[in-house]
Amino acid sequence: MYDVAIIGTGPAGLSAVLTLKLHNKEIIWFGSPEMSDKVGKSEKIANYPGVAMVGGADLNAKFRAQADEMGLESADKRVTNIAAMGDHYMILADNEMYEARTVLLSTGIAAAKGMENEARLLGAGVSYCATCDGFLYKGKTVAVYCTDERMAHDIKYLEEISGKLYIYTSFGYTTDAENAEVLKLPVKKLDGGMKCDSIELTDGTKIDVDGVFILRPAIAPSTVLPGLEMDGAHIKVDRSQETNYKGCYAAGDCTGRPYQIAKAVGEGNVAAHAILEHLNEIGKEN
Amino acid sequence: MYDVAIIGTGPAGLSAVLTLKLHNKEIIWFGSPEMSDKVGKSEKIANYPGVAMVGGADLNAKFRAQADEMGLESADKRVTNIAAMGDHYMILADNEMYEARTVLLSTGIAAAKGMENEARLLGAGVSYCATCDGFLYKGKTVAVYCTDERMAHDIKYLEEISGKLYIYTSFGYTTDAENAEVLKLPVKKLDGGMKCDSIELTDGTKIDVDGVFILRPAIAPSTVLPGLEMDGAHIKVDRSQETNYKGCYAAGDCTGRPYQIAKAVGEGNVAAHAILEHLNEIGKEN
Repeated sequence: MYDVAIIGTGPAGLSAVLTLKLHNKEIIWFGSPEMSDKVGKSEKIANYPGVAMVGGADLNAKFRAQADEMGLESADKRVTNIAAMGDHYMILADNEMYEARTVLLSTGIAAAKGMENEARLLGAGVSYCATCDGFLYKGKTVAVYCTDERMAHDIKYLEEISGKLYIYTSFGYTTDAENAEVLKLPVKKLDGGMKCDSIELTDGTKIDVDGVFILRPAIAPSTVLPGLEMDGAHIKVDRSQETNYKGCYAAGDCTGRPYQIAKAVGEGNVAAHAILEHLNEIGKEN
Repeated sequence: MYDVAIIGTGPAGLSAVLTLKLHNKEIIWFGSPEMSDKVGKSEKIANYPGVAMVGGADLNAKFRAQADEMGLESADKRVTNIAAMGDHYMILADNEMYEARTVLLSTGIAAAKGMENEARLLGAGVSYCATCDGFLYKGKTVAVYCTDERMAHDIKYLEEISGKLYIYTSFGYTTDAENAEVLKLPVKKLDGGMKCDSIELTDGTKIDVDGVFILRPAIAPSTVLPGLEMDGAHIKVDRSQETNYKGCYAAGDCTGRPYQIAKAVGEGNVAAHAILEHLNEIGKEN
């Protein structure tokens, strides 16, 4: 049982993990070892105190180096589901189960609500994880919708196993695979009764499929943790960064504007201290 | 008329001023050019993202250099009074008056409530500013209570002008001035009806005086801005860092724990964005 599961390796997650590590907490930290894609792609950052006028890639490298220096490693796994168990949380990441007393969501800003019917059909022909669920679709007709270039390897994997693969990406993807067809228009809607059986493109074209993989940098938090109270596209938190779930906190872009490194770092710090206080209250039981 | 008056040159103030400067706002920034005394005196900071394991003096120097690089200069004046005028604020600093549409309080954590009778007798024999009010006590009997070594020059000034000077400092002060007497015990209480006429030390000793100067690194915010809603010793703010006064924001240690650089920097950033939004709403009138 971990003391805390931190989801996200951006500035908010890093800020929290640095503080929690100093306090010798048992931490599982999920996210890309490349840290924040968003920071890395920023041209110049002029208003982050302590690091004067810096390119995003450089600042992101500083973040990475600092985590390394503190011996902090992230598990490069995608969290697809969190379940509140009363006094702790179960976290499903790349089909492995983890347990933690507290959770910090620092997942960045996700596509607001997902596609039409996405939440309803999730787990019924719709999956967020090719590695986890790809084997279910061997030889079948599959669509993949991907907005995260770092997940292109998952598209390759789906090319290998599917009978026919329809691909839409936001970053321009080409392939020689004979069973693959790159779509020019994005998917706007998923259809099906008990199970997803077709997709609809933005021009109204319908394509029959056996399954759909949606690969985004982040999954809408309320899909991952059902019942999580939102304020529009943002996770609702109080001044201590706690969500409506006791012991579950959120920090950074996912809690709202301004989408700024300084704000994320501050919220990660506040959340870490609230987590320390909470852990102290509940006491360690194992 | 300034767009914003920022009070404090610690991490919260710096974070806000960097952002507001990028947005070309007219800013008056009050505080020591030496930035944060508290940061400067920290031994090691291990959890500030982007600057790995750093001595406080070094980090404070980075803050200073960054402000210089952006052409940001602070006015080294002590803000003693703020008055809400409806659509703007009047700010009194070292007896000069400034006007600003918005105010950011980033004053650090101040002595909770001051001494007994301090708020009541302020301006009636009690002053926070030797430069401002010293001339009123030429040749008279004065007490000075100082907890900020950087204000020792004000004690010297009072030695020069007063007839008799009682001195208490928290940092060990010695003097050869014949009219000066260093007290071993701190002042715990001020006395007087319409005007302060004596002080009481912690052992109960009473000393008659004509006036008292209280020189602290920060003045309790609710003394500076009467009616400011507090939560214990902290300024009460909402998620956008706004206080109970419209257009008046607070960020950093003065809003509460954790007393951390990351938290201060985050709140300063959030406050700056809220100020931008507010300025946009009220529109520029002159």
